[in-house]
Amino acid sequence: MKRIDSLETLRARLAEFAAERDWDQFHNPKNLAMALAGEAGELLEHFQWLTFEQSDKLPPEARAEVELEIADVLFFLVRLADRLGIDPLKAAEKADLNLNEPKKDGALDEATGKSLADWLKTTLGDKVGE
Amino acid sequence: MKRIDSLETLRARLAEFAAERDWDQFHNPKNLAMALAGEAGELLEHFQWLTFEQSDKLPPEARAEVELEIADVLFFLVRLADRLGIDPLKAAEKADLNLNEPKKDGALDEATGKSLADWLKTTLGDKVGE
Amino acid sequence: MKRIDSLETLRARLAEFAAERDWDQFHNPKNLAMALAGEAGELLEHFQWLTFEQSDKLPPEARAEVELEIADVLFFLVRLADRLGIDPLKAAEKADLNLNEPKKDGALDEATGKSLADWLKTTLGDKVGE
Amino acid sequence: MKRIDSLETLRARLAEFAAERDWDQFHNPKNLAMALAGEAGELLEHFQWLTFEQSDKLPPEARAEVELEIADVLFFLVRLADRLGIDPLKAAEKADLNLNEPKKDGALDEATGKSLADWLKTTLGDKVGE
Repeated sequence: MKRIDSLETLRARLAEFAAERDWDQFHNPKNLAMALAGEAGELLEHFQWLTFEQSDKLPPEARAEVELEIADVLFFLVRLADRLGIDPLKAAEKADLNLNEPKKDGALDEATGKSLADWLKTTLGDKVGE
Repeated sequence: MKRIDSLETLRARLAEFAAERDWDQFHNPKNLAMALAGEAGELLEHFQWLTFEQSDKLPPEARAEVELEIADVLFFLVRLADRLGIDPLKAAEKADLNLNEPKKDGALDEATGKSLADWLKTTLGDKVGE
Repeated sequence: MKRIDSLETLRARLAEFAAERDWDQFHNPKNLAMALAGEAGELLEHFQWLTFEQSDKLPPEARAEVELEIADVLFFLVRLADRLGIDPLKAAEKADLNLNEPKKDGALDEATGKSLADWLKTTLGDKVGE
Repeated sequence: MKRIDSLETLRARLAEFAAERDWDQFHNPKNLAMALAGEAGELLEHFQWLTFEQSDKLPPEARAEVELEIADVLFFLVRLADRLGIDPLKAAEKADLNLNEPKKDGALDEATGKSLADWLKTTLGDKVGE
């Protein structure tokens, strides 16, 4: 078995796997976005009753389950991006474009819509303090 | 700006970015799993009223927004895995272990809990008629 | 067993049930919002590979499962609202305030932020056509 | 404007509202489940960086936003159930059938699949302690 040593390797393997089973008919972007959200929901359920401390120190069994859920989310994210002809790393780079430029707090970048700085800023915003 | 040419590069950049802003206090696995699910929900909303065909042919503006949402999901997935000490590609490999071995339809693998084959099989199961 | 004939009856029963088990310690709004989203994800998974037509004609077994998922979502929605001191029906009424007033397409209402009209409008927007 | 004093009143109003705009064509169960999950994701985002304490004491502005998100989730839950011919309160009652009967911890009820007791038990399970 070929090692999965990059997102590109994973993309190719998943594409091949789906093609062999004639699953491309089900793997339209709408369905894949649903499957991705469903897996994100399963991941969420592992943490819903935990304290912050407990979430940082998962027992081995729970950690192994979470690891597989992370894989599931990644599978569908990679499949969705592939179907749309989007390179996830390039997408990350675009979202990250303005990172080195100083900018006002909370300001949205006109060109890219949202920078990595904005991404974290808007979500961390007023509610958590300063 | 350094190019983001691998998941590892992205992991390192996000870690640095969060550290500089003292955000590790907010980035516990519980919170990150929530943020991931929230972004998956935003991605979902782009597709909720579309037909399959429309989801395959997004207009340029919608496609650009979806690309940034994919980046957002990836950001939080990478941060979550990093915080838990999990390598997403290794996780994918574990989930994929049994891929080359013949196995009965729908059977769950005892060792890994779920193989890539199972992942797609169980969700595609009876309902769509195989 | 008392019949559940209103949201208020359901609210009271769930509150009692949680109190008897000393679960209020886990049922803070953050955790309940997570549990709600997790259940919404499970509901989603029932539909992810279906066509629109299939989703309208669920086989009896799938329909029974979906019915229980709907109950699960409702349970956590009611618990969350209760914990926050919010009446879901009053919330619906507030969101619905401007329904009878003519308003421009896509315009957001300043007072309520979003009317029922807006809610459907913004999500149905440009992407599906007129 | 007629008051929304019950789930049934809300159901009727939403049905009428959608019918007037010819939106039933978009409101198939698959799309409505997506919209519901999307709104649950928005609700989630309000809480993602908060501590438990902060989530219990939302500032007035955040609380008003959360109230509208709760309405949004309820709207789509009610629409989805209506489209499927499911009564949410009857669904809650079914899920709640075994509540008064003593049963073993974690045991799943064969008849209903999941009781209200199970619902809370399975999610609260081992991870949080006893």
